Amino acid sequence: MKITVVGAGAVGASCAEYIAIKNFASEVVLLDIKEGFAEGKAMDLMQTASLNGFDTKITGITNDYSVTAKSDVCVITSGIPRKPGMTREELIGINAGIVKEVSSSLIKHSPDTIIIVVSNPMDTMTYLVHKSTDLPKHRIIGMGGALDSARFKYRLAEALEAPISDVDGMVIGGHSDTGMVPLTRLATRNSVPVTEFLSEDRLSQVLEDTKVGGATLTKLLGTSAWYAPGAAVSGLVQAIACDQKKMFPCSVLLEGEYGLYDICIGAPVILGRNGIEKIVEIELNDAEKAHMQKSAEGVRKTNDLL
Amino acid sequence: MKITVVGAGAVGASCAEYIAIKNFASEVVLLDIKEGFAEGKAMDLMQTASLNGFDTKITGITNDYSVTAKSDVCVITSGIPRKPGMTREELIGINAGIVKEVSSSLIKHSPDTIIIVVSNPMDTMTYLVHKSTDLPKHRIIGMGGALDSARFKYRLAEALEAPISDVDGMVIGGHSDTGMVPLTRLATRNSVPVTEFLSEDRLSQVLEDTKVGGATLTKLLGTSAWYAPGAAVSGLVQAIACDQKKMFPCSVLLEGEYGLYDICIGAPVILGRNGIEKIVEIELNDAEKAHMQKSAEGVRKTNDLL
Amino acid sequence: MKITVVGAGAVGASCAEYIAIKNFASEVVLLDIKEGFAEGKAMDLMQTASLNGFDTKITGITNDYSVTAKSDVCVITSGIPRKPGMTREELIGINAGIVKEVSSSLIKHSPDTIIIVVSNPMDTMTYLVHKSTDLPKHRIIGMGGALDSARFKYRLAEALEAPISDVDGMVIGGHSDTGMVPLTRLATRNSVPVTEFLSEDRLSQVLEDTKVGGATLTKLLGTSAWYAPGAAVSGLVQAIACDQKKMFPCSVLLEGEYGLYDICIGAPVILGRNGIEKIVEIELNDAEKAHMQKSAEGVRKTNDLL
Amino acid sequence: MKITVVGAGAVGASCAEYIAIKNFASEVVLLDIKEGFAEGKAMDLMQTASLNGFDTKITGITNDYSVTAKSDVCVITSGIPRKPGMTREELIGINAGIVKEVSSSLIKHSPDTIIIVVSNPMDTMTYLVHKSTDLPKHRIIGMGGALDSARFKYRLAEALEAPISDVDGMVIGGHSDTGMVPLTRLATRNSVPVTEFLSEDRLSQVLEDTKVGGATLTKLLGTSAWYAPGAAVSGLVQAIACDQKKMFPCSVLLEGEYGLYDICIGAPVILGRNGIEKIVEIELNDAEKAHMQKSAEGVRKTNDLL
Repeated sequence: MKITVVGAGAVGASCAEYIAIKNFASEVVLLDIKEGFAEGKAMDLMQTASLNGFDTKITGITNDYSVTAKSDVCVITSGIPRKPGMTREELIGINAGIVKEVSSSLIKHSPDTIIIVVSNPMDTMTYLVHKSTDLPKHRIIGMGGALDSARFKYRLAEALEAPISDVDGMVIGGHSDTGMVPLTRLATRNSVPVTEFLSEDRLSQVLEDTKVGGATLTKLLGTSAWYAPGAAVSGLVQAIACDQKKMFPCSVLLEGEYGLYDICIGAPVILGRNGIEKIVEIELNDAEKAHMQKSAEGVRKTNDLL
Repeated sequence: MKITVVGAGAVGASCAEYIAIKNFASEVVLLDIKEGFAEGKAMDLMQTASLNGFDTKITGITNDYSVTAKSDVCVITSGIPRKPGMTREELIGINAGIVKEVSSSLIKHSPDTIIIVVSNPMDTMTYLVHKSTDLPKHRIIGMGGALDSARFKYRLAEALEAPISDVDGMVIGGHSDTGMVPLTRLATRNSVPVTEFLSEDRLSQVLEDTKVGGATLTKLLGTSAWYAPGAAVSGLVQAIACDQKKMFPCSVLLEGEYGLYDICIGAPVILGRNGIEKIVEIELNDAEKAHMQKSAEGVRKTNDLL
Repeated sequence: MKITVVGAGAVGASCAEYIAIKNFASEVVLLDIKEGFAEGKAMDLMQTASLNGFDTKITGITNDYSVTAKSDVCVITSGIPRKPGMTREELIGINAGIVKEVSSSLIKHSPDTIIIVVSNPMDTMTYLVHKSTDLPKHRIIGMGGALDSARFKYRLAEALEAPISDVDGMVIGGHSDTGMVPLTRLATRNSVPVTEFLSEDRLSQVLEDTKVGGATLTKLLGTSAWYAPGAAVSGLVQAIACDQKKMFPCSVLLEGEYGLYDICIGAPVILGRNGIEKIVEIELNDAEKAHMQKSAEGVRKTNDLL
Repeated sequence: MKITVVGAGAVGASCAEYIAIKNFASEVVLLDIKEGFAEGKAMDLMQTASLNGFDTKITGITNDYSVTAKSDVCVITSGIPRKPGMTREELIGINAGIVKEVSSSLIKHSPDTIIIVVSNPMDTMTYLVHKSTDLPKHRIIGMGGALDSARFKYRLAEALEAPISDVDGMVIGGHSDTGMVPLTRLATRNSVPVTEFLSEDRLSQVLEDTKVGGATLTKLLGTSAWYAPGAAVSGLVQAIACDQKKMFPCSVLLEGEYGLYDICIGAPVILGRNGIEKIVEIELNDAEKAHMQKSAEGVRKTNDLL
C-alpha cells in the first residue's frame, strides 16, 4: 500500500505520522510546495521508526508528483487559513484553486486512487473534487465527521468521567460549528445510553463544547489543532487500505440519501478497498432531520461561493 | 504510573504523545507556563485516543505543580532557544535558571521521582540537576544518546537501503555536533557489521550526516526537530516505568567510568524501575577513547559557563 | 507491575501471552503444578518477544509460590474439567479445593494483590474466594462477562456483516448458558441500535448463538476455547494495572445492587488500580430484571454445592 | 491483503493469530482437513478482536480451497509428526504427499501467491515445492531461520540478563539440531559484540541450548512448540505483505550462493512484495563455511529420501 499526503503542515505531518505508526502501509509520500519542508518532516518522523516500532517508509518531496505515482490513497490537506481583510469568497477561491490543482496532479499519476479531502471548507472542497475531476463518487471522501465524532466522544467521556474507549457516538452533517449534527440521542457508554448517566443540562453542555471543539483549540493553541485531524485521517486510510468495512461519518456525495441531492455532507459510510462501499441511512428523528436540512443549506451557501 | 512532562512546546507535546500511545501509563501531565497552552495540546492529543487506541489520560495544566504530585518519572523539556545577539553564556544562564526552578518544583511534589533532562545544552543541564538537587545520581538521566543513536541508525539505514529496524548502532559522548561519538565500528545490519555492506567513504558520509543531524533538520524545518526527540524520551520513560532493563546511551554522572569524573555525558546505561540501574563500560579503541576525552572537554567547557 | 497467572493450560498461557503482548507489565509469572510445563510455555512465549515486539518478561515456575511474591494482580485459571461419571458436586468439590489452596498461597506471598478468578464454575469460585480469604471485596473479580460480551459482539458483528470494533454490547448475569443476560436492547453499531439493522428473528438467533458460545466452540475444537478467555483476562488486568477506570461486566459480590445480596454474579464495574472501584447499576427493564433474578437463583444453587 | 494458512493445529492457529494481531491484512483464511476444526479456531480468535484491537477478519474453512482464492501469501503448516515405529522415509513420504497436494491446491486458486513452507522437514519440503510446482524461486520461502534466530536471541538474552529486544543474532543453515549454523561471532547486544559480556564457556552453552531449542520445548510441553513458530511466520508474512524489505534468514533455493547449488537451505534474504527480493551473501569464516557445507550435506540426505 502506498499512501500520499499533500501538505506537510501540522495536519499533513500528523496524517503521515499516524499512518506510519499503524504500520500497514509500505510507503507514505509527504509532499509540500515549500522547498525542503516535507523532506524535513519525513526525516524527523523516520528517525522515530526504531523507537516507535514501525517499518513504513516515509518519503518527503517538494512538489514533484511523479514520486506519488500509483498511490492507493491520497490525502489533500493543502490550503491557506483566512487572513485579516480577506473575504470568505476570496479564501474559498484561493483554496479551491489549490485543491483543484492538487487533485488533478494526484490523479494524473495515480488514476486509480481514492482521495480524502481535509482542506477547508471541507464539504465544499470535497464537492469541488467531484465537480472538477472524473473520479467516481465512491473514491472521493471528505474527512470531517470522524474528527467531529472524536471530539464528541472526548466531551462525553469528560462528562462521564470515563475513558474515551468506553464511549461511542457519531456526528453527521456539515463540518462546521453550526453544521455539525451530533447524535446525542444515540451516544452510549459501553452500549448504555449516556442519558442514564448525564443530566439534560450536562448533555447540553457536551453539545455546546463539541460544536466549538475546533474553535476552543484554536483559542488555546493560537493556531488550529492537528493531532486529532491527523488521527482521524489515519483511521479512514487504514479502513480503506486494509479493507476493514468500518463505518465512519464522512462527507460524501448524496443522491437522495437523507433527502438530499447534489451535495457533499457528513453521513455514515462503510469504508473498504473500494473507498465508500455503502452510504448508511440511519433513522433520524424530526429534530435531527430538520438539523440535517439546515446544515445542508449552510453547506450549499458555501458551495455557491465556488 | 504517572508521568509528568514540563514544557508543552513541540518536543514536550511529542513526549506526551508517544508516552500515551505506548499505553502503559495511567496519566501523563503536560505542564507549561503559557496560559492554556498545555491544556490545548492535551485536549487535541486526548481527542486522538479513540482513533489511536490508547487509554492513558493526558492532563494539561498551566504552571500548577501540585497537579504533578507523585509522578514516577518527570521529563524537563523547558528552556529557550538562542536569540540573535544573545551570548552563549547568557543563554546557558537563562536555561540554567529555568531548569533549576523546574526541577526543584517537580521534586517538591514528587520527591521519589526520576528526572529526565531534555533541555539544552543537555549534558550541562543534567549536570546542573545533580549539583542543584539532592536526588541520588541514578535518578537523573539526560536524554541525548537515544536520539543521536536513532539518527545514526536512520543514516545507516539510508545508506544500506534497509529498514531502520534491521539496523543497530550506538552514539555515546556529548550531545552536540562535535561531542557525539558514533560507534561506527560496532554498527550492524541484522548483526552483520555494516562494513560488510558499505564502503569506507559511504560510512564517512553517514558519520558526517549523523553529526549534523539536528542542524540539518533545523535548516529544513526552520525550527529544531521534535518527533524523534519525543520518541526517544518515550522509550526511556517506558524502560523505566515498565522496569525493562533495556540499554540506552544516556547522559549520566560518571565517577571513573570511561576514565571520567564529575561530568554528565553519554554512556550506555541499563534503565529500570530505579532509573539508571547500571552504567555499562564497553571497550573502546584508542580513537574512540580519544574522541570521548575530547568530547568531555567540550562538555566541561560548557559546564564552566554555569 | 508484576502479574501472576496460575495454571499454564491453554487458558492460562493465553492470559500470559496477551498480557505480555500489551507490553505494560514488567513481569508475568506463569505457575503450574505439572513439572516443567509452565517453564515450557513461558520459554515458547518468550521466544516470540523479538518477533511480536514486547519487553515483558515471562517466567515459568513449577508450584513455587515464592516466585509470585509481590504480584499486583493474580489470575487463577486452575481447575479440572468434568470427567465422565463425575457428579457436578464432585467436580465443584475438587475445584473448590484447588481454588482455595491457590488463592491462599497467592495471598500469602502477595497480601496486597487483586485476584481475578477464571476457574469454573466461575461465579461460585469467585464467591468461594470471598468466603475463604480476608481480601476486601473490591480486590476479588470474576472473569466471565467480558468473555460473554466479546462473544455477543462477535455474533452481532457476524449478523451485521460489520467489523467487531464497530459493535458494542454487554452481557451481565451468571457465566453460564442459562445464566447470562445479554442486553440486546442496548447493543449498538457505531452507537446506532442494532435493531435498526437486524430483524427480530436475526437478533433472536444472535442471542441463541451467544448463549451456547462456549459449547459451540467445545464441539468444534474437541476441548473448551482459550484465546478469547485469555484476551478477556488481559483486558481486565490492563485496566487494573494501568488504572484505566474502564467498565467491564465482571462477577462481583453484590450487597443490594440489582436487588441481590451475598452473591457473586456479573454486573458492570469500573476497574482501576484498586480493583473494582465502583459497581455500576444500570436501569434494566422488567424482562431483564426477571432474567437477572433467575440467573441469580441458578448461581445460588451452584453455590449451595460448595 | 489476503493471507491463507493451511493447517489449523497449534502452529497454524498461532500463525493466523499473530498475523491478525499485527492488523495489516484484510483477511486470514485458516484451512484444515478436520471437519469444523479451523472454523472453531477462527471463531475463538475472532472473539479476541474487540479485546486485542484488530480488524483483520479470520475465516475458518474445512478443506475448501476456493475460499483461499487470490491469496497474496499462503503458509503451509500441514504434516504429521513422526509416530512410533515409523521410519524417517515413511514420515517424509507421507508429508511430501501432503505438501505437494496442498501447494498444488493453493496455486490453483492463487496462481500469483507467495508460499511459505513450515511443514517438516522444512528445508526438504521447501525444495519439494520448487520441484513439484511452477512457482518462480523468489515466491517459495521456507520458515526456519527466523525461528532459530528468535531462539538464539532468547538464549543470548538469558545469558546476558538483557531484554531480548536489546539482542541481535542470526542463525543460517539447515533447520535442524545439527544443521543450524548460529553466527555467534556476529551476535550483539545494542550493537556491542556479546563476546564483551559473555565468557567463551557461557557462549558455548548458549550455542548448545539454541541447537536443542525445539527439543527442549518438546520435552517440557509434551508436544512441539507453536508460539514462536507462529510469530516467526507472522514476521515473514508482514515483511512481504507490507513490502518492508526486511532481512530474515529463510530457506531459499541456492544457485551458487554460499557455494551451494540446487538446495533449499537457510540464508539471509530480503523480503518484500515480490517475496525473496535478494539473497544476501555475508562473509563467513572458515569454520562457518565448513559448518554450512556439512549442514547442506545433511539437508541433501533428507532430500534424497523424497
